[in-house]
Amino acid sequence: MRFFSHFSRILLHNRSASATLLILSSFSGGGLIAYADSPSDGERPISIENEKETKKKKVVVLGTGWAGTSFLKDLDISSYDVQVVSPRNYFAFTPLLPSVTCGTVEARSIVEPVRNIIKKRYGEIKYWEAECLKVDPVTKKVFCRSNIEENLAGNNEFSLDYDYLVIAVGAQVNTFNTPGVWENCHFLKEVEDAQRIRRSVINCFEKAVLPGLTEEERRINLHFVIVGGGPTGVEFAAELHDFVHEDLVKLYPSVKDFVSISVIQSGDHILNAFDERISSFAEQKFQRDGIQVLTGFRVLSVSDRMINMKAKSTGVEASIPHGMVLWSTGVGTRPLVKDFMEQIGQGNRRVLATDEWLKVKGCEDVYALGDCATVDQRKIMEDISAIFKAADKDDSGTLTVEEFQDVIEDIIIRYPQVELFLKSKHLLDVTDLLKDVGGNDKEVDIEGFKLALSHADKQTKSLPATAQVAAQQGAYLSRCFNVRDKTISNPEGPRKFRSGGRHEFRPFRYKHFGQFAPLGGEQAAAELPGDWVSMGHSTQWLWYSVYASKQVSWRTRFLVVGDWSRKFLFGRDSSRI
Amino acid sequence: MRFFSHFSRILLHNRSASATLLILSSFSGGGLIAYADSPSDGERPISIENEKETKKKKVVVLGTGWAGTSFLKDLDISSYDVQVVSPRNYFAFTPLLPSVTCGTVEARSIVEPVRNIIKKRYGEIKYWEAECLKVDPVTKKVFCRSNIEENLAGNNEFSLDYDYLVIAVGAQVNTFNTPGVWENCHFLKEVEDAQRIRRSVINCFEKAVLPGLTEEERRINLHFVIVGGGPTGVEFAAELHDFVHEDLVKLYPSVKDFVSISVIQSGDHILNAFDERISSFAEQKFQRDGIQVLTGFRVLSVSDRMINMKAKSTGVEASIPHGMVLWSTGVGTRPLVKDFMEQIGQGNRRVLATDEWLKVKGCEDVYALGDCATVDQRKIMEDISAIFKAADKDDSGTLTVEEFQDVIEDIIIRYPQVELFLKSKHLLDVTDLLKDVGGNDKEVDIEGFKLALSHADKQTKSLPATAQVAAQQGAYLSRCFNVRDKTISNPEGPRKFRSGGRHEFRPFRYKHFGQFAPLGGEQAAAELPGDWVSMGHSTQWLWYSVYASKQVSWRTRFLVVGDWSRKFLFGRDSSRI
Repeated sequence: MRFFSHFSRILLHNRSASATLLILSSFSGGGLIAYADSPSDGERPISIENEKETKKKKVVVLGTGWAGTSFLKDLDISSYDVQVVSPRNYFAFTPLLPSVTCGTVEARSIVEPVRNIIKKRYGEIKYWEAECLKVDPVTKKVFCRSNIEENLAGNNEFSLDYDYLVIAVGAQVNTFNTPGVWENCHFLKEVEDAQRIRRSVINCFEKAVLPGLTEEERRINLHFVIVGGGPTGVEFAAELHDFVHEDLVKLYPSVKDFVSISVIQSGDHILNAFDERISSFAEQKFQRDGIQVLTGFRVLSVSDRMINMKAKSTGVEASIPHGMVLWSTGVGTRPLVKDFMEQIGQGNRRVLATDEWLKVKGCEDVYALGDCATVDQRKIMEDISAIFKAADKDDSGTLTVEEFQDVIEDIIIRYPQVELFLKSKHLLDVTDLLKDVGGNDKEVDIEGFKLALSHADKQTKSLPATAQVAAQQGAYLSRCFNVRDKTISNPEGPRKFRSGGRHEFRPFRYKHFGQFAPLGGEQAAAELPGDWVSMGHSTQWLWYSVYASKQVSWRTRFLVVGDWSRKFLFGRDSSRI
Repeated sequence: MRFFSHFSRILLHNRSASATLLILSSFSGGGLIAYADSPSDGERPISIENEKETKKKKVVVLGTGWAGTSFLKDLDISSYDVQVVSPRNYFAFTPLLPSVTCGTVEARSIVEPVRNIIKKRYGEIKYWEAECLKVDPVTKKVFCRSNIEENLAGNNEFSLDYDYLVIAVGAQVNTFNTPGVWENCHFLKEVEDAQRIRRSVINCFEKAVLPGLTEEERRINLHFVIVGGGPTGVEFAAELHDFVHEDLVKLYPSVKDFVSISVIQSGDHILNAFDERISSFAEQKFQRDGIQVLTGFRVLSVSDRMINMKAKSTGVEASIPHGMVLWSTGVGTRPLVKDFMEQIGQGNRRVLATDEWLKVKGCEDVYALGDCATVDQRKIMEDISAIFKAADKDDSGTLTVEEFQDVIEDIIIRYPQVELFLKSKHLLDVTDLLKDVGGNDKEVDIEGFKLALSHADKQTKSLPATAQVAAQQGAYLSRCFNVRDKTISNPEGPRKFRSGGRHEFRPFRYKHFGQFAPLGGEQAAAELPGDWVSMGHSTQWLWYSVYASKQVSWRTRFLVVGDWSRKFLFGRDSSRI
């Protein structure tokens, strides 16, 4: 303060005072050195912000993706002191990333500053643009470092204390240790990836048209390879095909016949997580479009010019030259998560295991959401004796239908696999389960009860690593945080069969609202709730309206819809910026 | 062709044929090596494209900025075989670059692919994304290299033959050899520069709010310094001020009082190429806005944390800490142009000298436009005897008013400084010039004639390095190229006083349509033709409409206007991408 006001006063009003300027000059230089080098300056601890509002519980959130943002959006911050740490100061609407790769939608249209999202009327959420490097669950501290490379004043490292920690850092690319992938492939996880791909596609075209290349060289440069036939890979292939055939053929007419797109898939079909009808619809559409689908191949290595693979059925190896490779398969663990898992005894896992309330197993007050975590559903057979005991009110050693009906609701909430099990057996009434084992008897003993539910745990399903799951987990957890005060005295969860009493909250339950797979040419396929499948042009319009409505802000909605209109009016832009 | 069709046939229809796959695999590997390594393959020369359409004259254009694009836009390519070489495959509407630095306008909204601009109905202009490294005016060749870094197949270097060469490569930043400028300053020449500045501004804010920084460190990180008080520097300062006060203060409230912006100008006033009224209006507005204007300072060096300068009047040195520096002063020579100037004997110049027809002096069939060139206006005094001789039809040794009137039109076209000279002397009628020296005599001799025009050459003005000049030069030159066939038999230029006959074309004449200086807060200043000056809010709206109308395509117009609307509706985006 002193320095700057001093400085401007002198320079603006007293410019000829050379003596003062000299003093100023030495003062300012010395001042800067003092600030930069002396840690004792001001005697303030690094985490001073943590000391304010000490009565409120400190919540630290790591990550600003789907899970983190969705958690922050509805969190009632009147009773929490919230700090967010993420290297990205924005939330990205990742389902539109494939559209960004070809300029159908602009990168900026799908991002919203975190600070805009967390601006709240009461209180304030603090956001730090930094990466969390280490979590110490013992001292309840996180250690962070800003990744701003520019040489700005001040320390880049700081630590934060927490009462509750929410880990929502997502996943990173999984190369399955395939040689050359990190060096020679593109990925599609971040907005910057999409921008890089866009420049790379244009580069391939600009290189391919240069004078002096052979026809084969042009053809190689325009061979785009996608490894992974999941929704991302398929959508990118479709986007690229449209970009080439709607826009680039007009601008690069001399090489339009040299373009080829190949999708390499290790499984037997692309989109194999979708309904079979969608999968074969997509394959047929790709065949009509001239997109090669190579199924049953495993990639062995990628070099700057070649991709080497092996036919899984025959074991024969093949090498194909490429201009660009997108690697879009698998979900890997971030170093922070790996390190944390080792600390808490989950070292041999791929993602953090949480209980059904999204609490990380093996440590206190740490939650994990989204792609970096998975819910470890408790098996009913582990608790079967306790359940029997709790249900058998009269301690008769047998369970009547009435006694069973009394606990079935709590069972289904606590062990959702039981509901799936009933569905799979087409049993409308749960009491039919007992009839199955007990015949016409109205009561079953513990062995009969075990027998009746012995196959239920096979119905346990792990959740996919999707935006939908992450967003629902974030919303679920923020609700838990918001009602925590009430639920302590008045728990709303199911019965605790082992220890008695009730759980504080109902466990997290994922609702699947369906899934889209845009296939290019204004066509899409969709899996809708209730086993509905929809394909074709109308589905693309459904896709447009769903994706427009799901935007995180009116600003991004305006921009995304604007981008779509722009594409229809003027096509996509091929400038290499 | 063979390889790819082969490949897909095998993979798609014959996947179990392992023997074939093996052959394919070795074939493809060997094939690639053959293509990449054997220059004898196909026996084609590198510049094969040049051999087509040999009847047409080959025109090579270097650069796709204002001059190059404006030349290409109206060129009649039915009689020319045109090739364009530029490292940027887009044209950028550079006057909006300062708006891009703060996200008022998006980078993509101000660029238009070159290929879109050069798409013509008859014939085709070829564009190569490459940098010209050397011009050989003797063999009439240019040597180019693609700057695509990716490891794509094929040679990056090629050469092109030309019959006419148009050099429109622009200028680069001039650091005046100030130490540390390249390493520690931002520039604002290219679209990428503007994007980098935008990220850097956000980084300064993100760093400044981090926990653990002292107040002084926050203040240093938020000190934005602009070196150069020309239109670019001033507009950036204004944009930044608006961005901070309209958008960032809401998102970074804790540091809003720590922001400061300083403009360092070596002259006595900012915007000193503008009318004095504009210059002082800008200074007053900046003072109200709290933007420091430090005039009369020369920057000595820039380090990563400090900028060192010297008061020109007192010689006293001062150092101020900074978070970010924009260097926006001066126009430097590109290496290609420097090298070419040395080849043609212009080695001691800063930019290429051309004659009034934009032909580079000292070599044949090479034209230069825009910031890399300057028109070397011929002095009338060099030709004064020849003019007198040509005008004195009756060889009487004296010039009558009638004889003078006969040549004055050609004189004014050929030597535009004469017109300015007459204006400066407030002479309405040119014949008054003769009266001035000849008194009441109706005739003047050679000495009197020389005397009358002796001060005319002082009115010679060099053209500013602006987009307006470049665009007019491009349009002028394309017209010359288009009418060349007609003007050979029917020259339209002024009389050649020395050699007799007429010049093929009229020389290039620049028309100044005025100049804008946006000052932030929806205010702008404008210098309009006829010494009009306009300042304030209405001028900003004039600016909006002029800049919207000047867009190179409907697409960019749609986008730029969309961006402005978005800014009014939602503000600027602060995501660091």
